Amino acid sequence: MDLLKASKDELKSEKEKLEKEYAALCAKGLKLDMSRGKPSKAQLDLSAGMLTVLSDNSQLYDGDTDVRNYGLLFGIPSCRKFFADLFQVPADNVIAGGNASLTMMYDTMLRLWTFGAPDSDKPWKDEEKVKWLCPVPGYDRHFAICEQLGIEMINVPMTESGPCTDTIKKYVSDPAVKGIWCVPKYSNPTGAIYSDETVKTLASMKTAAKDFRIFWDNAYIVHHLTEERPALLNVFDECKKAGYPNRPLIFASTSKITYAGAGVAAMACSDDNIAWIKKITSIQTIGPDKVNQLRHVKFFTEKTTLDAHMKKHAELLKPKFDAVCDILEKELSGTGVASWIRPKGGYFLSFDSLPGCAKRIHELCKNAGVVLTSAGATFPYGKDPEDKNIRIAPSLPPISELEAAMEVFCVCVKLAAIEKLLG
Amino acid sequence: MDLLKASKDELKSEKEKLEKEYAALCAKGLKLDMSRGKPSKAQLDLSAGMLTVLSDNSQLYDGDTDVRNYGLLFGIPSCRKFFADLFQVPADNVIAGGNASLTMMYDTMLRLWTFGAPDSDKPWKDEEKVKWLCPVPGYDRHFAICEQLGIEMINVPMTESGPCTDTIKKYVSDPAVKGIWCVPKYSNPTGAIYSDETVKTLASMKTAAKDFRIFWDNAYIVHHLTEERPALLNVFDECKKAGYPNRPLIFASTSKITYAGAGVAAMACSDDNIAWIKKITSIQTIGPDKVNQLRHVKFFTEKTTLDAHMKKHAELLKPKFDAVCDILEKELSGTGVASWIRPKGGYFLSFDSLPGCAKRIHELCKNAGVVLTSAGATFPYGKDPEDKNIRIAPSLPPISELEAAMEVFCVCVKLAAIEKLLG
Repeated sequence: MDLLKASKDELKSEKEKLEKEYAALCAKGLKLDMSRGKPSKAQLDLSAGMLTVLSDNSQLYDGDTDVRNYGLLFGIPSCRKFFADLFQVPADNVIAGGNASLTMMYDTMLRLWTFGAPDSDKPWKDEEKVKWLCPVPGYDRHFAICEQLGIEMINVPMTESGPCTDTIKKYVSDPAVKGIWCVPKYSNPTGAIYSDETVKTLASMKTAAKDFRIFWDNAYIVHHLTEERPALLNVFDECKKAGYPNRPLIFASTSKITYAGAGVAAMACSDDNIAWIKKITSIQTIGPDKVNQLRHVKFFTEKTTLDAHMKKHAELLKPKFDAVCDILEKELSGTGVASWIRPKGGYFLSFDSLPGCAKRIHELCKNAGVVLTSAGATFPYGKDPEDKNIRIAPSLPPISELEAAMEVFCVCVKLAAIEKLLG
Repeated sequence: MDLLKASKDELKSEKEKLEKEYAALCAKGLKLDMSRGKPSKAQLDLSAGMLTVLSDNSQLYDGDTDVRNYGLLFGIPSCRKFFADLFQVPADNVIAGGNASLTMMYDTMLRLWTFGAPDSDKPWKDEEKVKWLCPVPGYDRHFAICEQLGIEMINVPMTESGPCTDTIKKYVSDPAVKGIWCVPKYSNPTGAIYSDETVKTLASMKTAAKDFRIFWDNAYIVHHLTEERPALLNVFDECKKAGYPNRPLIFASTSKITYAGAGVAAMACSDDNIAWIKKITSIQTIGPDKVNQLRHVKFFTEKTTLDAHMKKHAELLKPKFDAVCDILEKELSGTGVASWIRPKGGYFLSFDSLPGCAKRIHELCKNAGVVLTSAGATFPYGKDPEDKNIRIAPSLPPISELEAAMEVFCVCVKLAAIEKLLG
């Protein structure tokens, strides 16, 4: 039924029906969680070979380096090479770090804040105002970093080909606008892939801030759900070509390749940025966990290949995304009160309800035992101006639970819409 | 020969002799390094059992927690418990982190700097001036953190029972003095162990800064070289008793227990500090590498005990310290131009030459192929006001190399002293 075209009476009778369904669902005492993009146990099990790939003292060398000892601020050469191949940049421009790219991003932002960039006039903390562009819907943990430092966030609408570059070009004429968050491939949560045009514009646009930075969080760089291997223009090269080599700070990790909590993170950036980070970081650490780095490198050379490994993830993940999309299709298609995109990679599905309904849907789901990512979480300050976006994370629960959760979700979406329409 | 009592002629003839010896040593083309406290390969080999203690998917749980996945900001319960036992504090007051206590200390200082402590009036960066007490000789990496942030460092002389508390009590009446670095057991580099009196004074003294912090780097907490197990008063308890529970920030790691580059670091602090760190850190990371934490816990419960393991380290380390001390004794005892302490634990030996000679000794050694920790490194800003302290790190080289290096060192010490005495 197209709820937008239904009469008041039709809506009322539909509401009664849904309320009964909802009550029955609540009575089940469900406890389901679709809130975070955590890999499932089966996915984690795929990397078992990594546990034993280093099993005796003779194997703990990368070239001449004993990976157990102190040293190598930017990680072992073979691991830097691994990420250099992934990023398609020179290994000298890669820093292989600890277990979390989030920490690398946070630390990088805090360094810009405390010390300024190599091309800054002063530390950003000493600027009267620092503003940041935030494609929305986006990733809550990115926004939280800005919020903690008091960096003013500006919403930039996402399109299928990336954030709206017309909006961006308008804002970057303000020297207080110092950067932008980007998840360029299988964007969190919309699944969008930045077009060549988008990457070129971001790389070459004039910005009033000469120390403008793109935080290029390529979190889902190899996280395909289909056989498609969509191209993404190399932002490192494009920025260099455009005369802004220091602009991009590129991040990724193996958190969703091997172990979510015990992977290896890496970043890539220009020579100047590398020198700047080296100077600051050498006071913070003697070096990352190089044993875990070597464990990763050996796993992907001796036990499997990255591509084969990611295909196994896709085999586990795709049926979950399909289940979610199938139920959405079946229950909400033609209702006029819901839209969503079937992503081709990544970890999320972005769902839009009728404006003004997302918080209510979240509440209804919660009361029925289904935890969703907080409504508003995909926007800076947790404020979705239209209160309509919900991020669905299907990776963790088994399919049976996903189906149960989505059944609840769809009832809640319709119920909230009718409540809204009836006013 | 007591060089201080020798005649000019005696010194000249001794100098000629030494110069010949030195030339002969230089001709050997040595390449020896006693600069950093790195464990030796044999020490690293002791933890081989840790590599395979987690070898299949069924073992990757700490209680109900899958240690491979995201979560647990402060580490797995069993690892927090491990460090709680070590620190003798409640596990709720322990944060088990990544591979480096240096990073925990740096990040903690940067948080104080950027956000202020829970009991601060404002972020330390917004204070007109922040000063810090630095027991000397001390640890260069501690001093480097203060230097990077522009925190003014004040030298406090070390004694056999810890830093001079009379000096400290004088300085803490200045509200700009916000804290102190401490390595309370087997202090780096003097090997001093803080007496009960010292700990009580530090814990209970009145400080003008109400947010005064003790960075209690208990790096050598179980790193004994002898059968003695010297007691160290519990600073956590003492500060609490004295009414200053937020004062101590306690750090340690397994870097010199298991793997220097791939251990587990931890810190302990009051409830208020824990809450403060939680709020800030939850934006920086989702959690530390919990697989490596579990690997450590299992190693020390299933494969060995901490005490038995540390005894094996001592068996490897003590002969090296003995070799160094024996040569110093043989070559420099009675010369009047050298003093040192035979430490009962830790990684270093602190050596004092005649004032004004340390840089020259460093240079002479370097030219003969022996790398020492930079002269001055044990003081803030790299400036040893008397230019006499040298930190000797005997852990890494094999004994034969140590002996060769110490032979060079002793010749250089005498040569530099005679150069000085002859003016």
